[in-house]
Amino acid sequence: MKHLDAALASVTSQQSAALADLIEFSAIPSISTLSERNPDTRRAAQWVVAKLNSIGMEHAQLFETDRHPVVYADWLHAPGKPTILLYGHYDVQPADPLAEWNTDPFTPTQRGDNLYARGASDMKAQVLTLIRSVGALLAAGSLAVNVKFLIEGEEEIGSPSLSKFIPAHASRLQCDYMVSADSGILKPDIPSIVYGLRGLAYFELWVQGPQTDLHSGMFGGVVHNPANVLARLIAGMHDSDGHILLPGFYDDVVTLDPAERAVLAATPYTDADVLAAAANPPQLYGERGFSSAERIGARPTLDVNGMLSGFTGEGSKTVLPAKSMAKISTRLVPNQDPAKVATQMRAYLAQHAPPSVRWTLNLLSGAHPAVVDRNSPGMQAAVRAMHTVFGKAPVLVREGGSVPIVGLMRTHLNIDTVMLGFALHDDGIHGPNEKQHIPTFWRGIETFVHFFSNAAQ
Amino acid sequence: MKHLDAALASVTSQQSAALADLIEFSAIPSISTLSERNPDTRRAAQWVVAKLNSIGMEHAQLFETDRHPVVYADWLHAPGKPTILLYGHYDVQPADPLAEWNTDPFTPTQRGDNLYARGASDMKAQVLTLIRSVGALLAAGSLAVNVKFLIEGEEEIGSPSLSKFIPAHASRLQCDYMVSADSGILKPDIPSIVYGLRGLAYFELWVQGPQTDLHSGMFGGVVHNPANVLARLIAGMHDSDGHILLPGFYDDVVTLDPAERAVLAATPYTDADVLAAAANPPQLYGERGFSSAERIGARPTLDVNGMLSGFTGEGSKTVLPAKSMAKISTRLVPNQDPAKVATQMRAYLAQHAPPSVRWTLNLLSGAHPAVVDRNSPGMQAAVRAMHTVFGKAPVLVREGGSVPIVGLMRTHLNIDTVMLGFALHDDGIHGPNEKQHIPTFWRGIETFVHFFSNAAQ
Repeated sequence: MKHLDAALASVTSQQSAALADLIEFSAIPSISTLSERNPDTRRAAQWVVAKLNSIGMEHAQLFETDRHPVVYADWLHAPGKPTILLYGHYDVQPADPLAEWNTDPFTPTQRGDNLYARGASDMKAQVLTLIRSVGALLAAGSLAVNVKFLIEGEEEIGSPSLSKFIPAHASRLQCDYMVSADSGILKPDIPSIVYGLRGLAYFELWVQGPQTDLHSGMFGGVVHNPANVLARLIAGMHDSDGHILLPGFYDDVVTLDPAERAVLAATPYTDADVLAAAANPPQLYGERGFSSAERIGARPTLDVNGMLSGFTGEGSKTVLPAKSMAKISTRLVPNQDPAKVATQMRAYLAQHAPPSVRWTLNLLSGAHPAVVDRNSPGMQAAVRAMHTVFGKAPVLVREGGSVPIVGLMRTHLNIDTVMLGFALHDDGIHGPNEKQHIPTFWRGIETFVHFFSNAAQ
Repeated sequence: MKHLDAALASVTSQQSAALADLIEFSAIPSISTLSERNPDTRRAAQWVVAKLNSIGMEHAQLFETDRHPVVYADWLHAPGKPTILLYGHYDVQPADPLAEWNTDPFTPTQRGDNLYARGASDMKAQVLTLIRSVGALLAAGSLAVNVKFLIEGEEEIGSPSLSKFIPAHASRLQCDYMVSADSGILKPDIPSIVYGLRGLAYFELWVQGPQTDLHSGMFGGVVHNPANVLARLIAGMHDSDGHILLPGFYDDVVTLDPAERAVLAATPYTDADVLAAAANPPQLYGERGFSSAERIGARPTLDVNGMLSGFTGEGSKTVLPAKSMAKISTRLVPNQDPAKVATQMRAYLAQHAPPSVRWTLNLLSGAHPAVVDRNSPGMQAAVRAMHTVFGKAPVLVREGGSVPIVGLMRTHLNIDTVMLGFALHDDGIHGPNEKQHIPTFWRGIETFVHFFSNAAQ
């Protein structure tokens, strides 16, 4: 264990260097959905390559895709030991709404124990927990497993290039299992491991009435208002109990068995915790008949992510808008399929959109839901590492988010994933004032050092 | 009739000067709702004062209000003859959506018979028909009635200052009747006079859930989405027949009597005409049980004018928005009252908004509906003037728009209004590529010359 001790000591002594890395990485506005940010997004990829080279990883390189490059590197000098594929992404969400940030989203700013920046928690800190733990073990001569890095740049837009990249690089990506660091724990003192992720089908829906905006007095009453129509279409997607009304939507949903309901009921994370992490809406709300843990992890949802029509400036404009738009996404659970859900959405619209408007629907991205083996060797190594560092066994939870690669690795290469990451529920990821809890970042690096050691045994 | 002939001859000889005026006036971006445009809006008021001085009107001046000044001028040298108050407004709607304009909205551009500019038709050309007709008669020494001008700068935001200004200047505004040029005709060869206007209650509604935007995967399913809630609230404002469901909304609506239904049924303006003027939606749509003319002129409506929530940029952002906003306006008919409708809207929201969100409602502007006397002396003078110029009697119609001053003059000073203006239904007012039909502009000036002559008899 001498080597392990040396690695752990260097992790401790290099905490401020790790934080400096996080500040530098988070300052790059690698917003994958905005094409105007393409140069920044590429710069983030190059930053990762340089960092991987600096710790002694080999074959560090960019693979081009239709949008943003994939970073790959490996270190394969532990014959007979497991090979672990380490997954992360270097892209981030847009920073909107900008006005609500207390400090600039791309000027990482420390306040107390937190570092505020878009992407700090999702997931630049998490990528760095991988890089710095592997780096510490390599420096101490004690990395006893084979590792490959796959750090992509399109996770926040649904990983569209991976469905081509993974089969095209099947042998390069061969491994015993994947570890995705795009994950989190319940609280700084409640370690947890995610064993289920929801899938995603993300749509953009346009409703068009007249060819141009009209005077709402002259034409109000004879022209069907596309904003009113859109509101009606969206409203009709749920019943009053919060059930989703797309035809056939629940056909493939796996019913929770009593054993798993018991596991989820044991989560030491109360509705009061959820309410606080959710930025305190007046009260929680969800599908009738299910607990919060079930609603988040094991039940599908349908949410408007954006909505726009007509005049939204100061004051009033009496306009009957020509068109309206909504971004609508469904989160999916086993065994729902995003392509099938797109068909269901289309069927719903065909049935309910009135003949007084035209509509178009685009599926912007899709991801399969995934539930992984709770008892795999990788999972056991992760559980033991968390237990060592946090002093208690992690809770097993099903998470509400989506990480497309988890389903893709299963589908294309039959590879299972361990989700081990250190974002917190109140990190504000995807919202304003995203932050990374710095002590948890350091603990994450330490946990990965133990994880790799456990995985070698 | 020598004087009248001289005035008409000068109108004809000065057509290009009138067009030059319209180009200059329309180039001023006097958007009353945008405070950043306040200097331009004031500049438009000053332009009108200068123009009124140039034709020989007296006491031309600005009266300050809480927002934009009122222009007043008079010429009272026809003792024993009627005094006519001439109404118009110098403010315009915002030019959004800017991308849909073929040429810059404030660089007036002639293409064929039309001049394209925001505000050209609504209502800078109409204001100029008043000024240039009075100017021609004054120059010919043949203005045989007393006239007062009241040209305001807040019509497009609901004329909020007039409810103070009119009672405060009651004696200054005394007249036999008012003429509002904020009106139009059905087609270039179908003269018409509006005898009914709808009222307005324009709202801004905000729905707030959590304090900040959230990750839609982590919180979708346990936090009620304010955009979904807003859609549901808007959808619930109509039933499937297009009836409005605000509690008590129809209590004060005057039922159309068979005689008036017959008048409206005689309108030589078909559904095909409406469809074309409405920029060709797939088909017309409206409240079950009523014709297009009735739906526009005699039935109340509820339209979304703007809607905004969450991420509306390129691509996808998996966000659960903290809040959502809609601008919603109702057009009202006799005897609905905007304040009472605001109470009904509030009651609807109190009843239907779920406890999982907070909401706020602001009434941005209100206007009373108005139906004027179809047989008044002013109306007869207008009918005869149109008949003379267009070669046929005008059709009498009820219009769907709102002109707040018409109700205010009735309420405060018991003054009736004649609506005589020359906008066309396909002028695109309030939308992109607004235009004024130039031959109709010239005909408008000519019609007013006849009108003032008729009014003196």
